Amino acid sequence: MSKMRPWPFAKGHGTLNDFVIVPDRQAQFDPTPQQVRWLCHRRAGVGGDGLLRVVPADSLPQWRDRGDLWFMDYRNADGSLAETCGNGLRVFVRYLLEEGWASGDRIEVVTRAGLRQAWVESDGRLSVEMGQPQWSSEPVPVGSSGRLWSGRVVDVGNPHCVVRLDQPSSLARLDLTRPPRLPNDSFPNGGNLEFVVRLGPERIRLRVWERGVGETRSCGSGAVAAAVDSLAGAGGEPGRRLVELPGGLLEVRLDRSGQASLIGPALVQARGEVAVPGD
Amino acid sequence: MSKMRPWPFAKGHGTLNDFVIVPDRQAQFDPTPQQVRWLCHRRAGVGGDGLLRVVPADSLPQWRDRGDLWFMDYRNADGSLAETCGNGLRVFVRYLLEEGWASGDRIEVVTRAGLRQAWVESDGRLSVEMGQPQWSSEPVPVGSSGRLWSGRVVDVGNPHCVVRLDQPSSLARLDLTRPPRLPNDSFPNGGNLEFVVRLGPERIRLRVWERGVGETRSCGSGAVAAAVDSLAGAGGEPGRRLVELPGGLLEVRLDRSGQASLIGPALVQARGEVAVPGD
Repeated sequence: MSKMRPWPFAKGHGTLNDFVIVPDRQAQFDPTPQQVRWLCHRRAGVGGDGLLRVVPADSLPQWRDRGDLWFMDYRNADGSLAETCGNGLRVFVRYLLEEGWASGDRIEVVTRAGLRQAWVESDGRLSVEMGQPQWSSEPVPVGSSGRLWSGRVVDVGNPHCVVRLDQPSSLARLDLTRPPRLPNDSFPNGGNLEFVVRLGPERIRLRVWERGVGETRSCGSGAVAAAVDSLAGAGGEPGRRLVELPGGLLEVRLDRSGQASLIGPALVQARGEVAVPGD
Repeated sequence: MSKMRPWPFAKGHGTLNDFVIVPDRQAQFDPTPQQVRWLCHRRAGVGGDGLLRVVPADSLPQWRDRGDLWFMDYRNADGSLAETCGNGLRVFVRYLLEEGWASGDRIEVVTRAGLRQAWVESDGRLSVEMGQPQWSSEPVPVGSSGRLWSGRVVDVGNPHCVVRLDQPSSLARLDLTRPPRLPNDSFPNGGNLEFVVRLGPERIRLRVWERGVGETRSCGSGAVAAAVDSLAGAGGEPGRRLVELPGGLLEVRLDRSGQASLIGPALVQARGEVAVPGD
C-alpha cells in the first residue's frame, strides 16, 4: 500500500451481478491484477464481481481505425482477464448511455470475444447478443447436492450443464454449497451447473453454480443455457423464456438462426473517485 | 424502488470493518431502515457492515447548544440503530479530519452512548476511548466448534466471553460457522465470543464470533475484551496489548483508572454520489 492514486469509478449491477466501472478515455490507467483485486474487494476497495474498464477501441492495435467504438476491458475479481460477460455488457452499455458516450437504440461494443451488439428495449431494459449456443441431446450424469442427476450439455461460449427438476420446492431444497461432479469427457475444464424448473409456458426458475465461484445470484450465460435447454425440450423452435434468478428476472430470446439474446435490467447506482493503491 | 435521490457518500474501513459514510451537514437526509439496508447492500448499493451518518450534534434536542460537535448516527446494516462502534468511530473521525470538519489531535464525537473522545496518534493511527470494561474472574462454560470450553465474561458496554487457547494452530483449526452456546444466566441477551492465543508478552491473536453476525474479520469491542482478559491474566496491571485480527492489527491500552482505548488504522478509500431509492 504505497502511494495512492485518485481515479474516477462507478458501481453498477444487473440482477445483482455487480461491477466496478473504471472509465479510462485516454487509455492511461491499465490496472495491475493486484489493483483489480483491490478495487473489487468488498471491504478495502469498492467491491464487485468483476471490473469493467471503459477504454476507446483504438487503444487496441486490431481496432486502430475504430475510435468511434468502446472496448469493454473486462477483468474477473481475482485480476485475471475474461472474454465477456452478459450482465457486465449490459451494465457497460448503461454506463456509456448515461455518460453520453454512446447514443441511439443500437450500440456496438468491442470485447475480447469480438464485436458485440446491444439494443435498448422500449421498456428501458438492455438486450445483448450472446452468440449461437450449442445444445446436445445426449444426457450426462452430474453429482450435486448429495445425489446423481441427468443433465444436458449447452455451450454458450463457456460450458454449461443443465438439469431439469419437476418442482419449485425441489429447487429450493438443493444444497449447492459444494462443487458439482461433472463428467470429465464432456467438461475437460470443468463447467457451470444450472438446475431449472418450469413455471409456465414461457417461464422458468433457475439456480446456478458458477465454475470457480460457487452459487451466484445471477449468471447471464447460465440463463441462456437454461432457456436454450427449455426451448429444445419444447421442440427446438425459436422463442423466448423469462428466467427467474435469485437476483432478479432476465429474458432470453432465440431467433430462427439460433442466435441468442439476453434482456434485462442494468443500473449504475454510484459514481465517484477512489484512491487506488500503487503497484 | 420508486424515485431515486442522489446523495453524497464515502466508503471507509478500519481493519476491514467497513462503513458507508453519509454526510448530512444540514440534517436533511435521515434514511429509513429500508434505505440503510439498500446503502449497505454490497451489490445493489454501496456496501458496508454499517452506516455512519455525519450530522451536526445540535440536530439532537439534548445537544442543542453544541453545534461545534458532530453526532455519529450509527446504523447497523439491517437498518436498526446502534449505540456506538470502535472501528466505526475511528473511520468517522478520519472522515471529519479529511473533510476539514474537525482538526487538532483530540476530537470529541457525540454518539448514542454519549460523548466519546478520539486522538490522532503520532504515527497517524486513531485512538478512541472504549469506556471502563468489567472483567469477571469466574469461569463460565461455552459450547463452540464441537467442544466445551471455559471462558471469562467481559462487559465492554456489550457482553463478551473470552476463551484462552494455548496454540496458534488450535486457533486456526476452530470451526466458527455455527453460533456458540453461551450460559443464559451470564448472557441473557446472547453475547460475542472471542478465542485468544498469546503470541508474546504484549501480543495476542484473536478470532471473533459476533452476536447476530457470525465470524467477522474485526471487532473493536472484542479486541478490547480479549486484551482486558489478557491483562487480567497477567496480574491486572494497566498496560497494552497488540491484537492480531484476521482483518489487521489493533492496539488496546488500559490505564490506571481502568479506562480502555482502542488504537488502529482508519481509511476513507472512496467518495462520490449514490442514487438512493425513495422510501
